[in-house]
Amino acid sequence: MSETPAARRGRGRRPAAEVRAAVLAAAGRILLRDGMRAVTFDRVAADAGASKMTLYKWWPSPGALAAEAYFARSRDALDFPDTGDLRADLIAQLSAFVRLLKEEGAEKPVSELIGAAQMDPDLARAWSESYALPRRELARVRLRGAQVRGQLRADADLDIIVDQLWGACYHRLLVLRVPFDESIVARLVDHALHGAAPRSA
Amino acid sequence: MSETPAARRGRGRRPAAEVRAAVLAAAGRILLRDGMRAVTFDRVAADAGASKMTLYKWWPSPGALAAEAYFARSRDALDFPDTGDLRADLIAQLSAFVRLLKEEGAEKPVSELIGAAQMDPDLARAWSESYALPRRELARVRLRGAQVRGQLRADADLDIIVDQLWGACYHRLLVLRVPFDESIVARLVDHALHGAAPRSA
Repeated sequence: MSETPAARRGRGRRPAAEVRAAVLAAAGRILLRDGMRAVTFDRVAADAGASKMTLYKWWPSPGALAAEAYFARSRDALDFPDTGDLRADLIAQLSAFVRLLKEEGAEKPVSELIGAAQMDPDLARAWSESYALPRRELARVRLRGAQVRGQLRADADLDIIVDQLWGACYHRLLVLRVPFDESIVARLVDHALHGAAPRSA
Repeated sequence: MSETPAARRGRGRRPAAEVRAAVLAAAGRILLRDGMRAVTFDRVAADAGASKMTLYKWWPSPGALAAEAYFARSRDALDFPDTGDLRADLIAQLSAFVRLLKEEGAEKPVSELIGAAQMDPDLARAWSESYALPRRELARVRLRGAQVRGQLRADADLDIIVDQLWGACYHRLLVLRVPFDESIVARLVDHALHGAAPRSA
């Protein structure tokens, strides 16, 4: 039950918040570099200088740790700008999302996490609660701000906008499994804002 | 290498096309009733009255057979009506898609197939080639018809419409893992056709 030597500093233990942040950072690094299966309590504990018992206490499974670590790791990259120009802000955020997937190594571990979640109810719950639903809530907040300012219709369904922007990317990633890059982002946003029907229809 | 007794009828073998259809039907039944892992060459061969060697010859893996079986099994249910009313036709087809997932047992095996594909390149290829891309092509054909008739803008991106309709459902199914039903379909279609921005914007 004792902390590993690396977890001690000076005379005391590190504060729990500090250990937690170190563990999430280590798990995020391992996840993006080596994939979901490399995120084991053993390896993360060693990398973070934390005790394995602490990890067992805080996370029900390595998958749950990986999902939360990906949320923490991606949070800055996926921040929602608010310049007042909704179209430009959505394009900027979605471009960052696509770059995170395609250029910064997230594609494989994210696909693996979501894939494994389809047959593992505990991982599914962890993924939804620690990543997917909190991220949807952040998107809702940004979209609600735009709606209040009249940049989205009062009866627009914000959850459907989320499905039709980020969900569209996941569709290509997971279901169609076709290559895509930032070049689709502006069209995705324009379709979500203005639709595909003739303006007069 | 010989056919099982059930595969013989009268003096000869069944024609290959007939055997293939029987195998796909059996695999589709097993898939929807008992899930992806129940689709084994042994069980499908027995159910279809075909030889296991035939299955090995025709499909590289049980997963590839399951993907093709799901395409065959869902094809009628997912037919694209063309009454001339694009909005009504899309609502009808997407409602059938949601019912297939939610009421006719496809949700679990489809999630399992797509999930397993994320870590199995052969299954991923089989799923894309035997199900996801052929279905996208069927949707494109229906949408292209509407575009030719001026019901979609000439510069509308048909693949993005596919992402924003069916992909939106997969987003809720696989990524968010939230419940949904047919009640979202009309709003999905209206958003895809008319967007979320104020009409004057």
